[in-house]
Amino acid sequence: MRIGGVLNLLGKLLLILSMMLLTPLPFSLYFHDGMVTTFALCSGIGLITGGLLAALFLPEEELGYKDGFAIVTFSWLSLGLLGALPYYLSGHIPGFVDAFFESVSGFTTTGSTILADIEALPRSLLFWRAMTQWLGGMGIIVLTLAVLPLLGIGGMQLFQAEVPGPTKDRLAPRVQDTARILWSVYLVMTAVQTVLLMLGGIDFFNALTHSFTTLATGGFSNFNASIAHYPSPYIQSVFILFMFLAGVSFSLHFLVLRQQNPLSYWRNEEFRFYLSLILLAVLLVFVANTAADSSDHPGRGLLEAAFQVVSLMTTTGYGTADFDAWPSFSRVLLVSLMFVGGCAGSTGGGIKVVRFLLFFKYARSQLHKLVHPRQVETIKLGRTKVPQEVMIAILSFFAIYLAVFVIASLIITAMGADIITGPSAVIATLNNIGPGLALVGPTQHFGHLPDPAKLVLIFCMLAGRLELYTVAILLTPGYWSMTRRPKLRWTKTRIPTNHE
Amino acid sequence: MRIGGVLNLLGKLLLILSMMLLTPLPFSLYFHDGMVTTFALCSGIGLITGGLLAALFLPEEELGYKDGFAIVTFSWLSLGLLGALPYYLSGHIPGFVDAFFESVSGFTTTGSTILADIEALPRSLLFWRAMTQWLGGMGIIVLTLAVLPLLGIGGMQLFQAEVPGPTKDRLAPRVQDTARILWSVYLVMTAVQTVLLMLGGIDFFNALTHSFTTLATGGFSNFNASIAHYPSPYIQSVFILFMFLAGVSFSLHFLVLRQQNPLSYWRNEEFRFYLSLILLAVLLVFVANTAADSSDHPGRGLLEAAFQVVSLMTTTGYGTADFDAWPSFSRVLLVSLMFVGGCAGSTGGGIKVVRFLLFFKYARSQLHKLVHPRQVETIKLGRTKVPQEVMIAILSFFAIYLAVFVIASLIITAMGADIITGPSAVIATLNNIGPGLALVGPTQHFGHLPDPAKLVLIFCMLAGRLELYTVAILLTPGYWSMTRRPKLRWTKTRIPTNHE
Repeated sequence: MRIGGVLNLLGKLLLILSMMLLTPLPFSLYFHDGMVTTFALCSGIGLITGGLLAALFLPEEELGYKDGFAIVTFSWLSLGLLGALPYYLSGHIPGFVDAFFESVSGFTTTGSTILADIEALPRSLLFWRAMTQWLGGMGIIVLTLAVLPLLGIGGMQLFQAEVPGPTKDRLAPRVQDTARILWSVYLVMTAVQTVLLMLGGIDFFNALTHSFTTLATGGFSNFNASIAHYPSPYIQSVFILFMFLAGVSFSLHFLVLRQQNPLSYWRNEEFRFYLSLILLAVLLVFVANTAADSSDHPGRGLLEAAFQVVSLMTTTGYGTADFDAWPSFSRVLLVSLMFVGGCAGSTGGGIKVVRFLLFFKYARSQLHKLVHPRQVETIKLGRTKVPQEVMIAILSFFAIYLAVFVIASLIITAMGADIITGPSAVIATLNNIGPGLALVGPTQHFGHLPDPAKLVLIFCMLAGRLELYTVAILLTPGYWSMTRRPKLRWTKTRIPTNHE
Repeated sequence: MRIGGVLNLLGKLLLILSMMLLTPLPFSLYFHDGMVTTFALCSGIGLITGGLLAALFLPEEELGYKDGFAIVTFSWLSLGLLGALPYYLSGHIPGFVDAFFESVSGFTTTGSTILADIEALPRSLLFWRAMTQWLGGMGIIVLTLAVLPLLGIGGMQLFQAEVPGPTKDRLAPRVQDTARILWSVYLVMTAVQTVLLMLGGIDFFNALTHSFTTLATGGFSNFNASIAHYPSPYIQSVFILFMFLAGVSFSLHFLVLRQQNPLSYWRNEEFRFYLSLILLAVLLVFVANTAADSSDHPGRGLLEAAFQVVSLMTTTGYGTADFDAWPSFSRVLLVSLMFVGGCAGSTGGGIKVVRFLLFFKYARSQLHKLVHPRQVETIKLGRTKVPQEVMIAILSFFAIYLAVFVIASLIITAMGADIITGPSAVIATLNNIGPGLALVGPTQHFGHLPDPAKLVLIFCMLAGRLELYTVAILLTPGYWSMTRRPKLRWTKTRIPTNHE
């Protein structure tokens, strides 16, 4: 690994985040919430740290393949650290682990919170909280559609077909092109949702921040009651629509926009599977809930079922109802959907729709092969033949996922969580959803967990968000054995090392 | 499929089972429990049905590959049906679905019971109950080590390396050879356990029946308190040892016996992984339980931890303690172990140790490949290179497993089970363990579930026991499209069909 080049890049990233730390200032000034000094201070700390890193270490021209893993993981980690400062330094979240948890929950677009009373925060801090998710969502889009395919991990090389993606062994130039295209889609959609929410009567501040957290499938809300704060069916429908869209690959959105043809959605096999799963689940939950309690208005019941299914499957985690009080059938179904997550290339977390789709295609092809042993089967996704390596990637993804899930659940329960709270807290963070069940359920929060448990969940959020491999690979000793001495700025002549 | 030949074989199987239905007679006569007529009647019904099938349909010389799936599934199904008659006709289990549940739970070596008061059954019926598990265990050994490798399913072709196994495309002759060898091992171990239990002071009847259900990793006990009925540490240790051995491949036992070298166990990679997992789990559960309640005697605590870990991981399901009342950490760990199950080729159920072993080998190799992209990785099990098809088989096994687990859990909860009872009932039956958690926990039973739920769980027991594929493949339309007209005994000349 070229550690100098990585640190240089992280420094530049911190510089960008320092600029972003100034965005809450207008709101702080407008609402007079006394956060101006805090944000200025945090921005300053970021400027100095980032500036030092960028100044101290020389950029590397040949940052590539292996450095990508470290860049990705340490990017999210350092964003999480700097992003925690406004909570901590303002004193609104007194414990640093808590502030770090809230910040990582933002940047990973998870949406789990340690706050018992969200509405007690100043407006500009709420804006920052939503902003962390929005930036995290941006990062994820670029990560999954531009960086990961390059690193060849998790079978992700398959899912970037439609975008003029990078093919060479270098990170920088084409990543920037891809990012620019996709971010414009992301920006436009955020703007459209903000306008639609304002048409429903929401003020600009809340419309904007909630659009931030919807498009990121983050799920942070400014209200303790989450979206139940807005009982209007129109507003809730807008949320359902945009959560649904945020769970679709942004490269597919781009394709549809470029071709001016909404039918392109339907031509995508992952999209069809995603839509079918959601429609089926909404129907089942609606029927189960109505059977259990028919006193509710059917329209309201359908809206609640649709909202909760879309919110949990896309791993947004917004709530309009306490689904933990729903019938067991609905809860088991919702928990199952939590694992599925969004489409690859969306801002949604979870295991991803396409992995399940391929998973079941393999099973079907295996059964078919047993009946017709002499036929040769090829697995296709749309019109593309799925290469063998993708299967290995999926298999090992599930293995790592399972290992992290079981070990993290054991650690959390060992720290005193009960048999529902512990594993569901892991599910909620590893899949980047937000709320779990029982003591971390939709009407609860994560604040009461002990600090070490929060650190484990922070690890889960990062591991889940970064497709496991990026984090897991840093834990293998082999990765570090090839670390190069960093090149400092004042080293004028390059000293060739053993690896050059 | 050659349906005539399959029915002929099923007829013969029922004839054998009719003979076995006479084995409880000596006990009935000795204990004067009034079951003689019932067993004679049931045996008669079996003789007539089996005789008719065997007489009506001609045996096929070329029963092969595809017929194997139907033979396996319908064998267990018809054994379950005939085996249910003694419970039902004696009136001791008044509902037929209940009797069928208890019988399938026996033949699949699951050990789930619908009986609230086991001790109220007559001795000869208890003997039959244990006998169903013992016979089921015999069937499983032959199935996994001789039949499934032939059918090429679930990657099972890999695990028969040590046994002089069949390689040709015909079922009959070599299956018989393999069966004879492995059954002798099974018989000897049953005899040894019976003697060891009697040395601990257990009477012959209980020693024999409990040895039956131990070696089968079945877990039916004659007592409501299960093995807690015998508080003696010696007796419980004998049970732990033989549950452990029953979870090891019987072909490995055979190898050790033939080579007279216990070190052969250690040379087997799956065995090492199995032993390490158990030792680690015992240690963790013991520490967690002691930390939660240190009032217990440490020796007793260690024994209880070891008993429960081995009982649940091998999917036996015996109890000496109510593990549902243990700390969450222990319960989460025990539930995780339930999925692992025994080694392939043992009588244990679950997903199987070797599948998890390979699963994690793939993950490790994938991580290694990301760090060293130019190195070629081969996965080995022991000294054998694992072929690519095994990976596909494992991947699709997990996919089918997951689908059955989620759908069955949804159906059971839709029928009113709570969020712990429903999924844990599915885990308990799909993995052939026995007890689940909450309302189907170790101190409870399955009797209170509605009949349709019991039928779903019967399906789970069969699907889990028969390695999923055998059952799943019968549900594909393609399988039945090639069914041949049965040849009846009075059809003297063979009529060639399209497929010949």
